[in-house]
Amino acid sequence: MKNRRVVLASRPAGWVSEANFRIEEAPVPAPADGQVLVKNLWLSLDPYMRGRMNEGRSYAAKQELGEVMIGGTVGEVVESKHPKFAKGDQVLGMLGWQQYGLSDGKGLNKVDASRVPPSAYLGVLGMPGVTAWVGLLDICQPKPGETVVVSAASGAVGSVVGQIAKIKGCRAVGIAGGRQKCDYVVKELGFDACVDYKAGMLNDDLKVAVPDGIDCYFENVGGEILDAALRRMNAFSRIAVCGLISQYNATEPYGVKTVQSILTNRIKVQGFIVSDRMELWPKALADLAGWVAAGRIKYRETVTEGLETAPRAFIGLLKGENFGKQLVRLG
Amino acid sequence: MKNRRVVLASRPAGWVSEANFRIEEAPVPAPADGQVLVKNLWLSLDPYMRGRMNEGRSYAAKQELGEVMIGGTVGEVVESKHPKFAKGDQVLGMLGWQQYGLSDGKGLNKVDASRVPPSAYLGVLGMPGVTAWVGLLDICQPKPGETVVVSAASGAVGSVVGQIAKIKGCRAVGIAGGRQKCDYVVKELGFDACVDYKAGMLNDDLKVAVPDGIDCYFENVGGEILDAALRRMNAFSRIAVCGLISQYNATEPYGVKTVQSILTNRIKVQGFIVSDRMELWPKALADLAGWVAAGRIKYRETVTEGLETAPRAFIGLLKGENFGKQLVRLG
Repeated sequence: MKNRRVVLASRPAGWVSEANFRIEEAPVPAPADGQVLVKNLWLSLDPYMRGRMNEGRSYAAKQELGEVMIGGTVGEVVESKHPKFAKGDQVLGMLGWQQYGLSDGKGLNKVDASRVPPSAYLGVLGMPGVTAWVGLLDICQPKPGETVVVSAASGAVGSVVGQIAKIKGCRAVGIAGGRQKCDYVVKELGFDACVDYKAGMLNDDLKVAVPDGIDCYFENVGGEILDAALRRMNAFSRIAVCGLISQYNATEPYGVKTVQSILTNRIKVQGFIVSDRMELWPKALADLAGWVAAGRIKYRETVTEGLETAPRAFIGLLKGENFGKQLVRLG
Repeated sequence: MKNRRVVLASRPAGWVSEANFRIEEAPVPAPADGQVLVKNLWLSLDPYMRGRMNEGRSYAAKQELGEVMIGGTVGEVVESKHPKFAKGDQVLGMLGWQQYGLSDGKGLNKVDASRVPPSAYLGVLGMPGVTAWVGLLDICQPKPGETVVVSAASGAVGSVVGQIAKIKGCRAVGIAGGRQKCDYVVKELGFDACVDYKAGMLNDDLKVAVPDGIDCYFENVGGEILDAALRRMNAFSRIAVCGLISQYNATEPYGVKTVQSILTNRIKVQGFIVSDRMELWPKALADLAGWVAAGRIKYRETVTEGLETAPRAFIGLLKGENFGKQLVRLG
């Protein structure tokens, strides 16, 4: 039995290409004492992976060349020599872009796939959902009646940010690329407005969408979208910097011109990574599970089939071609 | 008896020029009941005044055309119809760029000029000193052993920031323009190092000056200096944005290219204005007065003589020509 896996073949300069990845076959490893072998069923693709591909310092250890690409997975235990796991358990872990993974149980958690689809643990009830919760509720701390703006609004994180904002009594405004995504955000997710940045009137359209200015801005994109948001920030407003996807493949970084707004409006800008705030996960997941069960938070997935589609799907994610949570079905 | 005063004649486009001001004479006003007439002895010149000269929204009401330029003053009561003030009292207030000012007592405070020179209430024991205290201790919250960097390090605010950092057991590194200012900051004020940004090696020199990176950055300047600092910020570091003097006269704003550091290093960036934090003034002033009395905080003043020198001195301040606190002696 073979284990197919995607390894990092070379580091991208600028845009990622499929040539940066290599698909390999290796024997399926046998678990030693204290280990568990998992057959991965779902692979999560997330923007943070782009940072790991770089040579330079990032917020986590970089991805080594020739090693399996890092990634969140949901799978099923096929063999266990670990006392806490049994064959057949559905587990959430970080077993990477491969069909089978070994784990010593650290960072591996059983999930209840009877209540929600297992893929949800990679999205709305996983890292992206908790990221939305932490950035909005812990960092931005919106008050009822305030205006919350989120970029990449139809994505796995952004879609949850806006829906939590609505639950908390805020005006929720999205920024997304294209009419279709904006329609989804407003008509299906219940945002109050959505600005299509591809329509070419970003500054004007955002001004109209936030007649009372912006109190909380949840940043996933950066670049000119950050400049547009900074122009509309209110006094004592807050910005949670969760991602800057427009910059990850840029060879020349965009120069942000409206930094003076941070001073003039006494803005708090906070960069964050959800894994720094593990102590908030239980509370966040409890909230999210309740809201999903009650139909107050909806989500959408884009699924490609088979491990070999992962590189192309990941590149599409970086270009905004996905709609909602990007997944690869491996099983 | 005439009152000479400087009014805003026109709004600058880009750099301020002396033509933006007009010196006028008017009768010295007579105080009504509840008012006090003050003869101004010292006028404070501060970078924030540049923002008031603009048409656009700033963090305070803009300066109206034809009105006396706003500014902090220390003076002596020459006539009082206010129960709390008597002739001869030395008072700190915001009576503007003029020889005489009327006050209803609001925002006017008696100062004890027997213990420190009255001009100190416009600098180290006034708004600039409290600004340094609030930005460093309340926003950045440095821990002993951490590295604190401050731009405009020889200025009224920056010089106090670095000296407080030393008192708190931190490594203090300044950024200033010119060898002379850097020598002063290191040899007289006791900073551990100072980078002369005019020497043309800002990034390299800053890297050498902060071998352990930057934990707290107190920003007075912006532009390329902000970019250089962002490149060296540590994980979980803090930036207090107090001023962006390099941008105040810019017709094209500088594009900040290293915003990604905010995400990667989970930096907190907080814009602030000291007048928002009035509740901290008593504690800050008590600390500062104690440190000045003990010789632990030193300061330097640049003084020009006579009201008519104020416009030129203010322009010099914006260009970094001053050394320490910029004052005009009016008395």
